[in-house]
Amino acid sequence: MSRVWFNGAMTEGPLMVDARDRGLTLGDGVFETLMVLNRSPLWANMHLARFQAAALELGLPFDRMIVDDAIAEVVGGAGTGHHVLRITLTRGSGSRGLAGNGATPSLLLSLDPFDAALMFQPLALVTATVRRNPASPASRLKTTSYIDNIMAAREAAARGMEDALMLNGEGRACCSTIANLFMLKGETLSTPSRDQGILTGVMRQALLASAQHLGFDTEERAIAPAELLNADAVFLTNSLRFIRPVRALDHQPLATADVSRLIDALCDSARLQCGLDPRVDLSAT
Amino acid sequence: MSRVWFNGAMTEGPLMVDARDRGLTLGDGVFETLMVLNRSPLWANMHLARFQAAALELGLPFDRMIVDDAIAEVVGGAGTGHHVLRITLTRGSGSRGLAGNGATPSLLLSLDPFDAALMFQPLALVTATVRRNPASPASRLKTTSYIDNIMAAREAAARGMEDALMLNGEGRACCSTIANLFMLKGETLSTPSRDQGILTGVMRQALLASAQHLGFDTEERAIAPAELLNADAVFLTNSLRFIRPVRALDHQPLATADVSRLIDALCDSARLQCGLDPRVDLSAT
Repeated sequence: MSRVWFNGAMTEGPLMVDARDRGLTLGDGVFETLMVLNRSPLWANMHLARFQAAALELGLPFDRMIVDDAIAEVVGGAGTGHHVLRITLTRGSGSRGLAGNGATPSLLLSLDPFDAALMFQPLALVTATVRRNPASPASRLKTTSYIDNIMAAREAAARGMEDALMLNGEGRACCSTIANLFMLKGETLSTPSRDQGILTGVMRQALLASAQHLGFDTEERAIAPAELLNADAVFLTNSLRFIRPVRALDHQPLATADVSRLIDALCDSARLQCGLDPRVDLSAT
Repeated sequence: MSRVWFNGAMTEGPLMVDARDRGLTLGDGVFETLMVLNRSPLWANMHLARFQAAALELGLPFDRMIVDDAIAEVVGGAGTGHHVLRITLTRGSGSRGLAGNGATPSLLLSLDPFDAALMFQPLALVTATVRRNPASPASRLKTTSYIDNIMAAREAAARGMEDALMLNGEGRACCSTIANLFMLKGETLSTPSRDQGILTGVMRQALLASAQHLGFDTEERAIAPAELLNADAVFLTNSLRFIRPVRALDHQPLATADVSRLIDALCDSARLQCGLDPRVDLSAT
């Protein structure tokens, strides 16, 4: 059962959206996706700081107090289990011209139950033909103009795979359609740097911090796809799945060194925020 | 006064949109913008063929008969003057996963009066820092994921200019945020080719056909920005403004050779379709 908040109040049924809302017509908005567990949005401050920075870069009015109040209202009435919270801010309607100055923004929050069995699941990737564009700032922002990632996800689905590896125009590995990419070689954990055209995910940041604390060397740099084939482990991170081992790339098996120390660290961090280990439901299945 | 048709019927006031409509949340849709004059959508077959091709490429169900009937309903009740028709198809809601298979699409048409004084207006351009991405098929489709163009338009507005020249990752000239780019040198008319990461506009196609008929040499190729500074004329085309001369690029004046033969040819073509010259209102002002 969804809990939805739109432009000031909880709502049921369809939203009343202006036909010229630029979220609907032009993908002119930003969003965040958070895990909510035990009624606590995890890593909320990092998500909201990134949300605010993206809104600022796009010239979208952002009121942190309104967002905080809306989150409290949506999350407060939910159960204690795993949920996914999506916060979407669009430029709304009422402007003239493509620049959109003077439009009245729309804020949408939705909370849905999340199937915890989806966390930590290994997967195989296929390389997408759609490439990311480091020459656009939008490649580093979580905007609602998501068509490149959708096309890559459709390519993967058409080839019977769950997700795709996206490269940039120079052929370097960037990310999947919904997650950041990591590679472990010895005690060195590597992930594509922001200039490669990636969204720097909140779980990516949390993982880099945990890994450094655990004594791993970490580096953010350009990564050639061939390096993934020689790594000890390759995995994806995002706010809902936490860590997912990549067991194959384009049908070539990858090494799968143990990364349970990293998983434990992220789950400990989540437990400190919400009082529950995110694996609580999993242990019962 | 807007005339709006949404998912099967004319409607007034806000649309009833599902909170998970992927048009709203992910920019997952395609659109077309047409001029309507004397209740006739201009170059409608070319627009709808492109619309259908884009829908097919994105895996969006497209029913030409439904679209034709909706256009007739929206346009039939309008006045005879200049209007702008926007047709938007989103993937809608009801799917699982980013690929969006199984979603129920939404179709939205809106018709608004168009100020004919905006046609043929000269303008100055500034080069945007946001670059287009030829390595994504979306750069060649009119999708609702429009954030790159919006960011470029915001750059232009922030610098007091009406529109921006967009380059691709290799620094070649592509288009403006809402129009195709042409350059005249002697009797040769040049425009960026599709592989440069451009949307091949309907007015671009109409102009190429007219120019060939008039005896111009035409070529579609990569164009360096420096070539624009040495051209006899530079202009933009789109379905609403027809042709707009570019009188300056980054504050450098451009030559403005006479292109009235091309304007006349496009207006003749429009008149043959709808019975009125698109300049009819202009001559009265």
